[in-house]
Amino acid sequence: MKLEIKYTEKFINKSELEQYKEKAAEANKSLELKSGKGNNFLGWVNLPSETSDNLLNNIYSTVENLNNDIDFMIIIGIGGSYLGAKAVIEALSDNFSAYKNDKKTKILFAGNNLSEDYLYEIRNLIKNKSYAVTVISKSGTTTEPAVAFRILKADLEKKYGKKEAKRRIIAITDKEKGALKKLADNENYKTYVIPDNVGGRFSVLTPVGLLPVAFAGFDIKKIIKGAADAENITKIKGNDAEIYAAVRNILYNKGYTNEILVNYNPKLNFFAEWWKQLYGESEGKDGKGIFPASAGFTTDLHSLGQYIQDGKRNLFETIISVEKSKHKIILEKDEQNLDNLNYLAGKQIEEINKSAEQGTLKAHIDGGVPNIRISIPEINEYNIGKLIYFFERACGISGYILGVNPFDQPGVEEYKRNMFRILGKPGL
Amino acid sequence: MKLEIKYTEKFINKSELEQYKEKAAEANKSLELKSGKGNNFLGWVNLPSETSDNLLNNIYSTVENLNNDIDFMIIIGIGGSYLGAKAVIEALSDNFSAYKNDKKTKILFAGNNLSEDYLYEIRNLIKNKSYAVTVISKSGTTTEPAVAFRILKADLEKKYGKKEAKRRIIAITDKEKGALKKLADNENYKTYVIPDNVGGRFSVLTPVGLLPVAFAGFDIKKIIKGAADAENITKIKGNDAEIYAAVRNILYNKGYTNEILVNYNPKLNFFAEWWKQLYGESEGKDGKGIFPASAGFTTDLHSLGQYIQDGKRNLFETIISVEKSKHKIILEKDEQNLDNLNYLAGKQIEEINKSAEQGTLKAHIDGGVPNIRISIPEINEYNIGKLIYFFERACGISGYILGVNPFDQPGVEEYKRNMFRILGKPGL
Repeated sequence: MKLEIKYTEKFINKSELEQYKEKAAEANKSLELKSGKGNNFLGWVNLPSETSDNLLNNIYSTVENLNNDIDFMIIIGIGGSYLGAKAVIEALSDNFSAYKNDKKTKILFAGNNLSEDYLYEIRNLIKNKSYAVTVISKSGTTTEPAVAFRILKADLEKKYGKKEAKRRIIAITDKEKGALKKLADNENYKTYVIPDNVGGRFSVLTPVGLLPVAFAGFDIKKIIKGAADAENITKIKGNDAEIYAAVRNILYNKGYTNEILVNYNPKLNFFAEWWKQLYGESEGKDGKGIFPASAGFTTDLHSLGQYIQDGKRNLFETIISVEKSKHKIILEKDEQNLDNLNYLAGKQIEEINKSAEQGTLKAHIDGGVPNIRISIPEINEYNIGKLIYFFERACGISGYILGVNPFDQPGVEEYKRNMFRILGKPGL
Repeated sequence: MKLEIKYTEKFINKSELEQYKEKAAEANKSLELKSGKGNNFLGWVNLPSETSDNLLNNIYSTVENLNNDIDFMIIIGIGGSYLGAKAVIEALSDNFSAYKNDKKTKILFAGNNLSEDYLYEIRNLIKNKSYAVTVISKSGTTTEPAVAFRILKADLEKKYGKKEAKRRIIAITDKEKGALKKLADNENYKTYVIPDNVGGRFSVLTPVGLLPVAFAGFDIKKIIKGAADAENITKIKGNDAEIYAAVRNILYNKGYTNEILVNYNPKLNFFAEWWKQLYGESEGKDGKGIFPASAGFTTDLHSLGQYIQDGKRNLFETIISVEKSKHKIILEKDEQNLDNLNYLAGKQIEEINKSAEQGTLKAHIDGGVPNIRISIPEINEYNIGKLIYFFERACGISGYILGVNPFDQPGVEEYKRNMFRILGKPGL
């Protein structure tokens, strides 16, 4: 993994950078010492190095016990209880896996919205299929997943009987308290723990993310290995997570208040959704914070591209670039050459993609948009694990530089309070 | 369709509103009279009322000729040549249609990126299936679709032979010039015209959008009917398109420079991508423009929600609300009630969704976020057609109020020039 900030040089000066690097180092130290704001939610900091092989093997055996019997694994969860898993699965999967009629267990998500049609249609899809359910909730009473689980649990029991339904339900929840923990104990569900000191948006490297990813057929040991390596690297003063955090805060203070996470690979589109929660929920408070947005290029160069090139100059881009594609296609020569592409004949498609990236980088910088570039050698479990931890660590550092508590989310409660009042929830 | 701006009252005053309504009326008049900037690209204004039944029937007969023979229709196009079709198809489809092993033709998109793996994987998926290709490009030389088409055309010819391949290729292109038009004439492809005076992002109601939507099995006559009704309504002074355009410009000038298009229905997630191109590419120029972002609620209330509630106060929301769900699920009572949901027993899920919407609206306004609300009775072809035209009309008006040419996109060329230089394109 490599971070390049040279594409921001036109926009920031060296003394600023030095000053903010110091701030970042200090912030990173307080993460390490657990001495900053929200320090009861720093379980994610040493999570990768502390994840036991026991836990990972246990997850694998759960997968083995069920995976041959099911077409679909339904993951019920919202926010951090689904974004990370979905991001990793989409990054590692074939772009068209949904359309494949193969033996692989397909992972679907429910309880992440309140759309009646969504729930109806997922029930309709799985009705005549074999499926299991993983429910992820610390409390077990968050409205969206609780509603979905009440309904899908009843379906499972009706379809398979109470006993077999129990075998097909996995609960990921608090280690001792809450409605879901109580139910899981009563019913003897296979259960995994969401650690007390890990907030939802930092939970992808706990069973919350690992179990769905393992059901999708990916190597969670390699993910943890990548994350653990990143944990080691980002401890060091002056590391890339500090620099990313420093640069984005400098840019923010200069009025670049929107950050667009850019990729050149559709498999990373959903990774940006995970990143949006991580940064938006960590930093968007006290009237402050960079607004996190995303774009998939070259697709969106024919959409948001015009705005980025010539619109309001309050944005910067962070590019995730993947050096190597998994597959190889060479563009062949065409005798007629009506499309004028013969000058590209013999090239790999990814070479054209990279040229688009280079051309865009220059165009956007020339247009007044600072760019940060992060590159990984290829998309695989190890690098995704590394990238996840890198962004988590940088997020903690960045929030501290901004002066907020990056580990709370008080604003998420406000709409819920109003909603409960409207719905007439008892005891309000 | 109903527009409510009362949730912006706290943020704008009546005299401003009156003043901007006048500006909007003027802008709308210059659309009608074709007297404003970019008036050679106003073909979309009267497109719905001028769309002939002949054209629609012709599209239907093309669909009939192919649809029974194919599993997949691959749509090759980028920007406006795929966003509109995909937005409409996702809005009208089952959330899980990709997973269904039914007889319906599945629509896939290619040539909308330069990812080698994407292209490899789509070829791999369709290799042993029956498929056809629709290529959409005014010139036929835009890099992304041209690369994909060169490769998929060769595949088709190899798989089916030259003659049958011709039957399985449809071209949507310029009426007389360009590489694709020439090829289509040479090879005798079934061809549809992209009108000269309709830009890509306004082309969803031409064959560019209609043909893929018809292949997906939806009623394009109803879409055009909805759009034509919106065309009639939005001619009138003081109509909702003028008001939406007026209000967002007032907000923009007060520093609300990010607009988040919000929905409460996952089927509308991709509609926001179409809207982003429409507004971002039309307004993002001359150092100006509202940055278009999107969120799907309640999903993203557990992600961007915190930022929207408490972050930097430079954003406003535009909600698309759907009054009625297609299906019905009642939440049942549960004897144990460990999840504490029995107070909701007997309610439809959509009622809870609506309460979340109401609760969020109040919370966000209280938090300092102006809200605009657009509601439609239900998601169907007619209402989607209406919504499309509404947003197009409002976009033209809004761009004129902002003082830009909403119908050009000079910034999209910059990255291409750099890319061609890097790739060594002859003649540069």
